[in-house]
Amino acid sequence: MENFIAYNPTRLHFGNNITADLGETVKQYGNRVLLVYGMGSVKKYGYYDIVLSQLNDSGLEIFEYSGIKSNPVIEDVLEAISLGRSNDIDVIVALGGGSVIDSAKIISLGIASGENPWDYMTWKLTPKSSVPLVNVLTLAATGTEMNAAAVVQNHKTKQKVGYVNPLMFPKDSFLDPSFTVSVPKDYTAYGIVDLIAHSLEAFFGKGEPSITDQITIDIIKDAMKWGPLLINDLSNIDLRSKIMLDATLALNGLTNYGKKSGDWGVHGLGHELSLLYDTPHGASLSIVYPAWLKLHKDRIPERIIKLGRGLFSVDTVDDTISGLSAFFEDLGCPVSLSQINIEESRKQEIIDQYEKNKVSGMHHHLNSQDHKTIVDIMC
Amino acid sequence: MENFIAYNPTRLHFGNNITADLGETVKQYGNRVLLVYGMGSVKKYGYYDIVLSQLNDSGLEIFEYSGIKSNPVIEDVLEAISLGRSNDIDVIVALGGGSVIDSAKIISLGIASGENPWDYMTWKLTPKSSVPLVNVLTLAATGTEMNAAAVVQNHKTKQKVGYVNPLMFPKDSFLDPSFTVSVPKDYTAYGIVDLIAHSLEAFFGKGEPSITDQITIDIIKDAMKWGPLLINDLSNIDLRSKIMLDATLALNGLTNYGKKSGDWGVHGLGHELSLLYDTPHGASLSIVYPAWLKLHKDRIPERIIKLGRGLFSVDTVDDTISGLSAFFEDLGCPVSLSQINIEESRKQEIIDQYEKNKVSGMHHHLNSQDHKTIVDIMC
Repeated sequence: MENFIAYNPTRLHFGNNITADLGETVKQYGNRVLLVYGMGSVKKYGYYDIVLSQLNDSGLEIFEYSGIKSNPVIEDVLEAISLGRSNDIDVIVALGGGSVIDSAKIISLGIASGENPWDYMTWKLTPKSSVPLVNVLTLAATGTEMNAAAVVQNHKTKQKVGYVNPLMFPKDSFLDPSFTVSVPKDYTAYGIVDLIAHSLEAFFGKGEPSITDQITIDIIKDAMKWGPLLINDLSNIDLRSKIMLDATLALNGLTNYGKKSGDWGVHGLGHELSLLYDTPHGASLSIVYPAWLKLHKDRIPERIIKLGRGLFSVDTVDDTISGLSAFFEDLGCPVSLSQINIEESRKQEIIDQYEKNKVSGMHHHLNSQDHKTIVDIMC
Repeated sequence: MENFIAYNPTRLHFGNNITADLGETVKQYGNRVLLVYGMGSVKKYGYYDIVLSQLNDSGLEIFEYSGIKSNPVIEDVLEAISLGRSNDIDVIVALGGGSVIDSAKIISLGIASGENPWDYMTWKLTPKSSVPLVNVLTLAATGTEMNAAAVVQNHKTKQKVGYVNPLMFPKDSFLDPSFTVSVPKDYTAYGIVDLIAHSLEAFFGKGEPSITDQITIDIIKDAMKWGPLLINDLSNIDLRSKIMLDATLALNGLTNYGKKSGDWGVHGLGHELSLLYDTPHGASLSIVYPAWLKLHKDRIPERIIKLGRGLFSVDTVDDTISGLSAFFEDLGCPVSLSQINIEESRKQEIIDQYEKNKVSGMHHHLNSQDHKTIVDIMC
């Protein structure tokens, strides 16, 4: 095992009607609340009303920033910071999925300092403090509700940057599975892919096998067992709760115990597709993962076979990769670029983007030839 | 799944030579340190010297309380509190296993308040604060290094009380597997039994099956895989590290995600044996668990069989129980009272003790007839 530090101070409130405790929880951090949310679906499905009434019942003063996009952008973050600072905010409540919560994490740094948090994300400055953040999650996918990571795009610099800082651990996150029943079939599937990809990034990370391997495989197997049932029964709260817990466990640190780090090469490759073509995050991962595994089939065959044994009771690299690929396709997710209408003529554009941003993994390094091979496979 | 809250703010530092960061970690909580340890084995094996030099190198002022017994007693806790308060302690460093750390948790409440913490443990008073606690663990077993629980005995009132309070979460715990190589064969085995028993208390707790079941079974399986190898290779650091991580995972909250609570009936029954006969905690559990399972074989057969399938690939209640029992015996642990020289003539004494303290589980309740049956089986 590698030396490691396990630390996660977020308080996770999980279950039906769990937001009944939201108002009083938020109130302990102050009275002036910045409520951050997305493009309106939280209003359409009533989650906004529930949250607002909870906050109002506790006598909190609420300022709103709405309009956070999926694949969130730094411009929204900067606007929300400006709103928060001019209103002397005590605490942020983020209502939404990964994009909203990731944005809120960066907002929490910017409100505390007044500095431009893009300078944090690009390691030009180091933040010293953050405003308390409380989340109400509406999408089971990214695991952001219980970790210190955030991903935000900058269209001006053509970068999609992942940033990790312990100051961004949410204080509290409320996970009511019923808040996810409105997620449509495709995004439900993308969420399942995302949580599986997070588990795989840990599985293929740096560090010897340990109990963590088995737990990681358990999480993937659980998602593979219940995910397809959920896709055909989207309003089933019990299935929603299983996937919701899997998504949190996949990226709350647990799968990295005994490891130096996850790999994150696949996420890097996927982020560039989202940046170029606005590909949904989960869809980018279902395309990239099988290709990445094919690239690595002769480099880490034992590791891939260990995964295949655990997930599909198969004994070869090829069967493992085709098992994973078939699972993604059965969920309705793309496993090639052509399936999202990106034609072969765009190949060079993608390769150039990979080269420009030197996309690689933390453990399994990718060179220029690897970029070309992966793009070939994805086509 | 049941509604639940997942919260664990302890920072776990895990790995070889990890105590290199101890001094600076402690220093962030203040300069006046109460160093708490046991009966001298930490001096014999050099751990004390390592810790002391770490604390000295960071310029900390150290006050010592030594002599904490296994199956720790409230008298020691009260003396340590007195020492800590008269020296205006900022932070406690506990060097030892479960007994030392559990004592230190209660000491941390008493130093902060000046009240008698036995009143907290018996729910007469409620603590408001605690002194920061940093642990250096020397025994893989109880999981106390990453939870908010403590068990302390009171000989005067003939009680062994378990107490849980979030104020007792350690700030930091340092787990260097090499600090456990001196643990002798019997206590190494008791530690393995203890971590398995913690997992089982969760498994038989209140709540529907979920991913947590599988994770719990995998922790037990991991301990069953490496434990017997470790027993025959006590200085193997790699095996020590595997068991050490299993022990932490077994009782850091993870196995209770999606549950209302664990059961803890077996621990209750075991604690009374320790109280009456000073039976080592792990040995009490290897005796009680098979008996408890036999008592429940017609009450929860599906649940027991699920465990048997996961652990031993068997399909009957009897095979599950005999599999567990055989595992404990192969480790060198007792599975009956006669094996620890408690004769049948003591039966009534044990039954009376169970009756007096109304020993039961939180989910599977035990009545007077159950007490008798269990004692009969254990004999």
